[in-house]
Order: sequence, then C-alpha cells, then structure tokens
Amino acid sequence: MNHDVLLDRIERLELRLRAVEDEQEISQLVAAYGPLVDAGEAEMVADLWTEDGIYDVDEISMAGRDQIRAMVRSKNHQGWIAGGCAHFLGPVRVQVTGDEAVAVCHSLMIVNQGGAFEEAPEFVVRRATAHHFEVVRTAEGWRVAKRTSRVLDGRDEAPALLVRGAKGEPA
Amino acid sequence: MNHDVLLDRIERLELRLRAVEDEQEISQLVAAYGPLVDAGEAEMVADLWTEDGIYDVDEISMAGRDQIRAMVRSKNHQGWIAGGCAHFLGPVRVQVTGDEAVAVCHSLMIVNQGGAFEEAPEFVVRRATAHHFEVVRTAEGWRVAKRTSRVLDGRDEAPALLVRGAKGEPA
Amino acid sequence: MNHDVLLDRIERLELRLRAVEDEQEISQLVAAYGPLVDAGEAEMVADLWTEDGIYDVDEISMAGRDQIRAMVRSKNHQGWIAGGCAHFLGPVRVQVTGDEAVAVCHSLMIVNQGGAFEEAPEFVVRRATAHHFEVVRTAEGWRVAKRTSRVLDGRDEAPALLVRGAKGEPA
Repeated sequence: MNHDVLLDRIERLELRLRAVEDEQEISQLVAAYGPLVDAGEAEMVADLWTEDGIYDVDEISMAGRDQIRAMVRSKNHQGWIAGGCAHFLGPVRVQVTGDEAVAVCHSLMIVNQGGAFEEAPEFVVRRATAHHFEVVRTAEGWRVAKRTSRVLDGRDEAPALLVRGAKGEPA
Repeated sequence: MNHDVLLDRIERLELRLRAVEDEQEISQLVAAYGPLVDAGEAEMVADLWTEDGIYDVDEISMAGRDQIRAMVRSKNHQGWIAGGCAHFLGPVRVQVTGDEAVAVCHSLMIVNQGGAFEEAPEFVVRRATAHHFEVVRTAEGWRVAKRTSRVLDGRDEAPALLVRGAKGEPA
Repeated sequence: MNHDVLLDRIERLELRLRAVEDEQEISQLVAAYGPLVDAGEAEMVADLWTEDGIYDVDEISMAGRDQIRAMVRSKNHQGWIAGGCAHFLGPVRVQVTGDEAVAVCHSLMIVNQGGAFEEAPEFVVRRATAHHFEVVRTAEGWRVAKRTSRVLDGRDEAPALLVRGAKGEPA
C-alpha cells in the first residue's frame, strides 16, 4: 500500500464527513429557531437568516433581518410569550446540494390560553404548520435564505410545500 | 510513525464515520415520513419501506409497499389531508447493529376539525402514538422492514413498544 | 506529499469527527428520555443522568439517580402511564465545549383524559415546557449533570432558560 492509496482514502473521508457535518449544522440551525423565538431573542432569531433572507408565512412575509427582528419584537409576538407559547418544530429532513440545501419539517404552535400552570392553564394547538427551508452555505456557516410556512388547515399550499421540501425542490 | 500506523487510524475513522452516517440516515428516513404522508405522496411514502415491509398500526396492518400506497390513497387518509393534518414525529432514538437497526419515537397526529385558519380552525390532538422501527441496510440505503405503532391511550402494548425500542430489541 | 501532511489531515478528521459524534450522542441521550419515561423504565431513565445528576422541574427538584427513579415509580407518574401519556421532546440544539455541553429543547406533555382510542379518547396538551440540559462526558459516555425544566405558561423563567440554552450558557 502506498501513499496515494492512503491519500485517496483520506479524501473520501473528508467528503463524507463534510456531508455529515452539513446535515448536522442545518438541523442545528433549524433546532435553534423555536427556543430563540420563544425567548424573544430578536437578534439571534434574525441571525439564523442571511442578511436579506426571506420568511414567508401565511399572514406576513418578511424580507431581511430587520423585518424578522421587528416581528419578534412586535406586540403580537411579545403577547404570545407573555401568555406562554411554544413554537415546537420537528426534526428536519435535509437534502444538500453543494452550497445549497432544502429542509422540511412540521411545527406546532402551542399557546397557553389560561392562567398559571398551578392554577388554570389551558394549552391549545393554535396551528400546525408546514415549513420549507432553502438554506445556503455562507462564510459564517449555513443560513436560511428563504423559509416558507403554510398552515396545515386544508389549504393546498401546505401539502405542496411538504412534498417540495421532501423532494429537495425549491418552494 | 509508519504507514501501518496511518492506515490503522484511517480504518478506525472509516468505522466511526460509518456509524455516524448510519444513524443520520436512519433519522432522515424517519423524518421523511411525516412530510410525505401529509402531502399524500403515496409512492415516496411506500419507498421508505422495503418491498415487503410491514406497517402495523392499531387499526390496520399493511404488508408490502402496495398496501402502504393504498393506505395513503385511501378516502380516509385523503380526508385527513383535505381537512388539515400533521403526522408529527419526534426525533428517533436509534441503535444500529451491523446491517440492522431499531429506532423508537413518539408521534402526534394533529387534525383540524374546524375551518380555515383565518376563520375558525380547531386543531386537536387526535392521537399520541408510540413507534418502533426495525430498519435494514439495503442496496438503496436504509429502509423500514417493520414499523409497529400503538396509540398511547393506556394500553400496555404502547409502553412495551417504547421500552423495546429504547433497548434496541425487536418489536 | 509526505507523511506529516497525511498525519495532519488525519488528525483534523479525528477532531471534526469527534465533534459530530459528540453532538449526535447528546441528541440521542435526550431522545431516549421520552420513550423511557413513558415506558416507566426507572433504571434506564435514571441512567441518563450522572450518579448525582439533578433534574429540576417546576413542581419538584430531584438530586441523584435514586430520586429520579422514585419519580418514575411514583403513583403520580404511573398514573399518567396508565391513562396514556407522551412526554414528547423536540430536537435539541446542542453546544459542546470540550467535555461539557449545553442542550436546549421544548417538550409537550400529552395526556389522554378519556377512554380507549376506539371509544372516547381525549388527548390534551397538559403542558409545554422549556428544557435546559447541562451534560458532561463520562467514562460511560455523555450524561445529564443537570436538567432544568420550566413550564411555558408565561412565567419569565421559561424563556430565560431557552435563551441560556440557545447561547450555550449554564442554567
């Protein structure tokens, strides 16, 4: 066995490891969203996106980190936190192609419509949502270039997002 | 340091990396189920299983991809999608032994019993379920050989599945 | 290309792979909790913690494996299992620093307040919770040194835990 054979094996390991790292980093990127948004950490939420990243939800479409920060700081969002709220995202299915990737998952938004837990809390599922992420490799790591989210209330757009996400296609 | 020492380190890296890849691939296999089934993608759902794979749920036991496809295309399942539905699976605990593995997780089936989100949606938890997966390595990658699912309504079978899954034992 | 160059690439692969393994192992540690606790497996639940590990929840703070086992075997917890229960934890965001790590996730505790699934089940969200994990590398693998959990009912402690978890800070 010579040098070139060893080098070849090392190179294949490097490629495989990078694929594993990419998927893990993208999963971690998405896993950070729920805790950060429910903590009201506007800066860190926005930093999950690229500078001009898009977050397109049913009621609102945000373009750029400023608009994402504004959503987190909005009276509306702060009201959810004050009452008790979980943006609970599931594990993502990820498909990476070079410096781009598509990820897909569900989320549940759980809100407390009642009082303190020891008294009369009332946790309800406000919405179940389909999420499609287009992520890109940047100098700072993977970031969300575009997130498209549609409520799973029977509208056709939501299952359509899921299938495009599962196939690794753009939204 | 000589050649053999380098080779030994490379071989150990290859084994460790394969273990990491296996677990990641199995996690991804399971993570694909929810988005695909809620999108009604019968072909892609069935392809998560081996050709003769089994999907054994409380109400119905399916054997082979044809029966799984038929479930996805059934009036019943299409009705869930039409009303709004999320088959929300949690992160799997995976244990790999060579070319076989066992994975376990919970799921929640969330259905919209009301109307459109902007009007009067009503998302409820229809069921919480224990899932036990027996997966196998095939030429096309990891596939589900047998998935056993029991509702967590107090029946003994459901916790029994969870513990066998967590121990890496067959269902 | 000489020996030292190959060795350097191997060493970098070893470091990167260890980082990937660490995060995967910690994710798996957390993913085991729900299935084990809903199966009532007191020994295996307690073994997710270090011998003197802490589990600090709103209603109860446990110190050491004996107290964690006692919680799983308590009449209270066994009652949840008997009625039907899912401790459904989401994917963790993990940050590793050497032999210590911080992980954060949400959970939903789903309980069946009705009867058997075929008759009149009634699955409700009893609580949504923020979880902060301090985990440590031990001779037996990663174990929970301290888990801090607060209900997301509007109390300030819960979002505060989420942000400390997301930043990789102690609870």
